[in-house]
Amino acid sequence: MPEDALFSPEALEIPIVQAPMAGGPSTPALAAAVTEAGGLGFLAAGYRTPAAVRGELEELRSLTSRPFGLNLFVPSSPAEDRSSIERFARELEPDARRYGAELGDARYDDDGWEDKLALASELRPDVISFAFGCPSREVIADLREGGIAVWVTVTTPGEAAVARDVGADALIAQGFEAGGHRASFDDRHPGDVGLLALLQLLSAELDLPLIASGGVMTGRGIAAVLAAGAAAAQLGTALLLTAEAATSPAHRGALGGDVHTALTRTFSGRSARGIANRFMREHEHSAPHAYPEVHYLTSPMRAAAREAGDPDGINLWAGQAYPLAREKDAAELVRELAEESRQALAEAERRAG
Amino acid sequence: MPEDALFSPEALEIPIVQAPMAGGPSTPALAAAVTEAGGLGFLAAGYRTPAAVRGELEELRSLTSRPFGLNLFVPSSPAEDRSSIERFARELEPDARRYGAELGDARYDDDGWEDKLALASELRPDVISFAFGCPSREVIADLREGGIAVWVTVTTPGEAAVARDVGADALIAQGFEAGGHRASFDDRHPGDVGLLALLQLLSAELDLPLIASGGVMTGRGIAAVLAAGAAAAQLGTALLLTAEAATSPAHRGALGGDVHTALTRTFSGRSARGIANRFMREHEHSAPHAYPEVHYLTSPMRAAAREAGDPDGINLWAGQAYPLAREKDAAELVRELAEESRQALAEAERRAG
Repeated sequence: MPEDALFSPEALEIPIVQAPMAGGPSTPALAAAVTEAGGLGFLAAGYRTPAAVRGELEELRSLTSRPFGLNLFVPSSPAEDRSSIERFARELEPDARRYGAELGDARYDDDGWEDKLALASELRPDVISFAFGCPSREVIADLREGGIAVWVTVTTPGEAAVARDVGADALIAQGFEAGGHRASFDDRHPGDVGLLALLQLLSAELDLPLIASGGVMTGRGIAAVLAAGAAAAQLGTALLLTAEAATSPAHRGALGGDVHTALTRTFSGRSARGIANRFMREHEHSAPHAYPEVHYLTSPMRAAAREAGDPDGINLWAGQAYPLAREKDAAELVRELAEESRQALAEAERRAG
Repeated sequence: MPEDALFSPEALEIPIVQAPMAGGPSTPALAAAVTEAGGLGFLAAGYRTPAAVRGELEELRSLTSRPFGLNLFVPSSPAEDRSSIERFARELEPDARRYGAELGDARYDDDGWEDKLALASELRPDVISFAFGCPSREVIADLREGGIAVWVTVTTPGEAAVARDVGADALIAQGFEAGGHRASFDDRHPGDVGLLALLQLLSAELDLPLIASGGVMTGRGIAAVLAAGAAAAQLGTALLLTAEAATSPAHRGALGGDVHTALTRTFSGRSARGIANRFMREHEHSAPHAYPEVHYLTSPMRAAAREAGDPDGINLWAGQAYPLAREKDAAELVRELAEESRQALAEAERRAG
């Protein structure tokens, strides 16, 4: 397949890409709504079985014939230091008891890497995006041969250069502001680059389309990242209060407050940004670098806290500007944001003289 | 004086404000060049004697009749825990010896607060901006009565609300990306909000002109902050390599590299962003919250390291996108960036459809 037949973010009618939001909020209905409105919907393969991913892809295909993407987690190595995980598990026992839950099995897995790659090749979404690392040149070439555009999520200029060199079609530039997991290739040596700095650096240094991710909540935010050189904005937190998102009631409630966000490894063993709560405060100094082991360890406790409606035991992923999230139908929100972004650019042109 | 006679950033011919950059790089020549090009030049009162500030203001007035600003530090309280400063001083003795310097007297002062306010009222720059806190309603009212617009630097929505409530004319919104000191009102409880998130939050919540600061290096960056709702961009690091800036040779050299930046309290006892170096790495875990005591403690050592041309002993303040700094005359750079920002907005409008 010729390269120019692969899906490009520059072809979007509305320059809005839905963030995949693995682990709960993303649904086929949300992806379909964003895609049908003229943006790009996304499904999240992370944490799901290949069979569940297949089911969601088929459901999405039944809802829209327009382009969409699928996000995969690049596996990392098992934690070397099991004792730090065991210490952390002992520390969390009272938390589990508080919610009447058991701690989960702190196992390592690769999130079904090979099976999900095979599934992607078979079902051919228009785009596969990757987080938590960069796939090999061979993986990327195989997907592209199959007609799938490959986007790699990066958080620093160094990661961007790696992704370009192995053949990525576009880069998702994730700023420090972003809600949920940082996509850093190495969570032990993460960057802290804000989105606007990252976009300026990448657009000056690379000749690849950029999708800007992190704290973009409004038409002004979308206008800003386009002005900074991005082809589109990726929105996650902005969609958490839409009707189509499967955001839990406790999470929705917390998004209506104004507590600050912070980075934390407490829930999953990998840095992620969420609204600060009791669990984060009590364990922030002891959580090991051990993903996905800690994710599995805390998973039953988080499910029980969610069930109980207690935001203090849940990962309340949210980007830094989350108070600007709007309760709307997703398609209406996408169209509204697009219109506001055009207005913001027109106003900025007047100001720039 | 009627309020509408006070200087507004919306009146700028070119929406570029020079960051004051206390402690070295800023000069009357730099401020004059930015102002004469159509932006707003700034002088820094911080660390200087009132007599030196008077001399610089008079020099600047001899170079331009156009508007400019003066930046003041809002004093904080003396450190409560002298023992942590003494411990840190002992730790730094080998560093001082390395450069043949003595450690400085870790004294507290208020940076000549009352004298500098009196000087400002007397000499009447068009704008006074504040950092490290918010002045009282009375201080602000007095300056405004004297025909001086008051801008307060904020890093979170909470700080912005405080500044609005005491009568600030405009807010300098400083993102986490910014080089040099964080302007946080309380360095022990700082935010970590990125510029684009901060601008969206503040422009949605407040009806005050915003000046966007932090990592803005290019025309695209300026275009982005205008699109996000700012009236102007404040540039500091972007001007460090200009001919008019008094940036030291060792600092200029480091700006030509690509080492990452980090926040550090090691040089001054207050969080600031600089290019990572030996001194930051070796002392990052032991530096107390004690500003300006630690500033005075390390000052002779830094001067000696600067003299010796050793970047590993100097505070290499720089924003996150510093590799994009350009060696130019300041006026030429300001005009070039303005032209690029207009191009970036035109391109973004095409992309937004």
